[in-house]
Amino acid sequence: MPINVLFAAHPKSWALYEGPLHTALDAIGIDYRLGTDMAPDTVDYIVYAPNSPVQDFTPHTRLKAVLNLWAGVEDAVGNPTLKVPYARMVDDEGLTQGMVEWVTGHTLRHHLGMDAHIVNPTHAWIADAPPVAADRPVGILGLGELGSACGQALRALGFPVTGWARSLKSIEGIACETGEDGLRAVLKQSQILILLLPSTPATENTLNSETLALMPRGAFVINPGRGALIDDDALIAALDAGQIAHATLDVFRTEPLPQDHPYWAHPNVTVTPHIASETRVPSASRVIAENIRRGETGAPFLYLVDRDAGY
Amino acid sequence: MPINVLFAAHPKSWALYEGPLHTALDAIGIDYRLGTDMAPDTVDYIVYAPNSPVQDFTPHTRLKAVLNLWAGVEDAVGNPTLKVPYARMVDDEGLTQGMVEWVTGHTLRHHLGMDAHIVNPTHAWIADAPPVAADRPVGILGLGELGSACGQALRALGFPVTGWARSLKSIEGIACETGEDGLRAVLKQSQILILLLPSTPATENTLNSETLALMPRGAFVINPGRGALIDDDALIAALDAGQIAHATLDVFRTEPLPQDHPYWAHPNVTVTPHIASETRVPSASRVIAENIRRGETGAPFLYLVDRDAGY
Repeated sequence: MPINVLFAAHPKSWALYEGPLHTALDAIGIDYRLGTDMAPDTVDYIVYAPNSPVQDFTPHTRLKAVLNLWAGVEDAVGNPTLKVPYARMVDDEGLTQGMVEWVTGHTLRHHLGMDAHIVNPTHAWIADAPPVAADRPVGILGLGELGSACGQALRALGFPVTGWARSLKSIEGIACETGEDGLRAVLKQSQILILLLPSTPATENTLNSETLALMPRGAFVINPGRGALIDDDALIAALDAGQIAHATLDVFRTEPLPQDHPYWAHPNVTVTPHIASETRVPSASRVIAENIRRGETGAPFLYLVDRDAGY
Repeated sequence: MPINVLFAAHPKSWALYEGPLHTALDAIGIDYRLGTDMAPDTVDYIVYAPNSPVQDFTPHTRLKAVLNLWAGVEDAVGNPTLKVPYARMVDDEGLTQGMVEWVTGHTLRHHLGMDAHIVNPTHAWIADAPPVAADRPVGILGLGELGSACGQALRALGFPVTGWARSLKSIEGIACETGEDGLRAVLKQSQILILLLPSTPATENTLNSETLALMPRGAFVINPGRGALIDDDALIAALDAGQIAHATLDVFRTEPLPQDHPYWAHPNVTVTPHIASETRVPSASRVIAENIRRGETGAPFLYLVDRDAGY
């Protein structure tokens, strides 16, 4: 009997994923049906976007797992009806590679002072070379898949990288810290700070007026993590005071960022439209298929959400 | 008897180098004198900038070598009075590392389409993620110390890298080409093209109307090499026609770039003030001292200029 895979996401996503998911599922050699409309009590797996109309999982009585299309799970992890294993998307080819490119690019942009050349209406020729990367300490808050990969790419380019995570990590080439004192130590030395923490009650407003004040004067903030990691009013005050030289932000509490939000007009803020880490369809489809193969062969699922931690 | 080291460069350079050169020369354990004013027939080594007043080397009758402070030697290599060994500056810590950072940064900038976010007066939120680096072929013309180091850094970030040099090279991770057909092959596939050729009669106007037309439509040109590699009028025509999407240029036939040069005003040109590869004083001083140590111990000099090739 074939297994039934329900695709529960926006119809635009279905148009993108239908072909690649078939390709990936065909490749694992399991008999399956894939569709967007199935009787709930026949569904074995749900390929899921948290903004899908499926919010009550109770009628899916034989559901084996929910496989998220996105890296972010905060909108669904607290759903009391979601009781089966719940896996986040970890798409190394798309999500991680895209994040590494975006983070490395914007880190180099601030390190090299590119903006002064990109926008130079007075045609000023000021030949001040920046320090080499070895003299530009970078901090990363959050050392999961993404933070760790970004840290290693920056290390390979010569930046000294210090990282912080809730639990103490050990990552080649990255000086790892944990705890409140560790967080202060990372902030104090980071001329460029990258936020890659998950969004949880404990990480909300990690950057606030107190923590921003710990950073070296004229530091740069790069946030491709989650909008709620930053107290927006405190960041704008730190930018206005020159404590923070520039912030490049990819994620916001409300997206798209509302037109009247002060970030848009601030000369020292760059807004990017949540593009740092985008799932790429072919590789994400292979991740989904691999988890279904694991479910059907009794192997442990990849990338399961830790419900107690909230991510 | 101490050896005599003449410092022949701009007085501003002397202010920067005097201390670090003493530190580096003290470390090699050779008895020496270092200064900016010595009787020519007492000088053993000249630490040299090609724009120094010393242009006739004839009176320096016991000169053992000329040690360039710069990577570029084209202004002095043809000097018929310069008959002793002539070494260029190859400062891996400063020149090569700085170049790798500048090239990697601007390659990622164009790859990610950063400029549309840095300057976004309409506050447009257009969440189109770029392709991953694996789908963005990069070409490098010139595979010396700098081109090879840049190619390997870009390869490590996932870009497919093809390179071209006058003689066929073999470099890990880089598809190497040579000859006229090889040049055409590299140009045809390079969505981002990086110029790191030396300035010689043979490389002048390597990018011209014919070669620019071979590139994929909408490609990016990055020139941290030499100004004379590009036919400026041809590049501006290719930019105006959309054949080239954007050019980021660090070097020019006249520097500083004259205020009335069309590059300054062109919306699709970024000018940087010859900062991609700057000698860093402490590491460059160590390179000079090492070559003096070699001269005094009979070891071969590092980084000798090939006068026939002109670099």
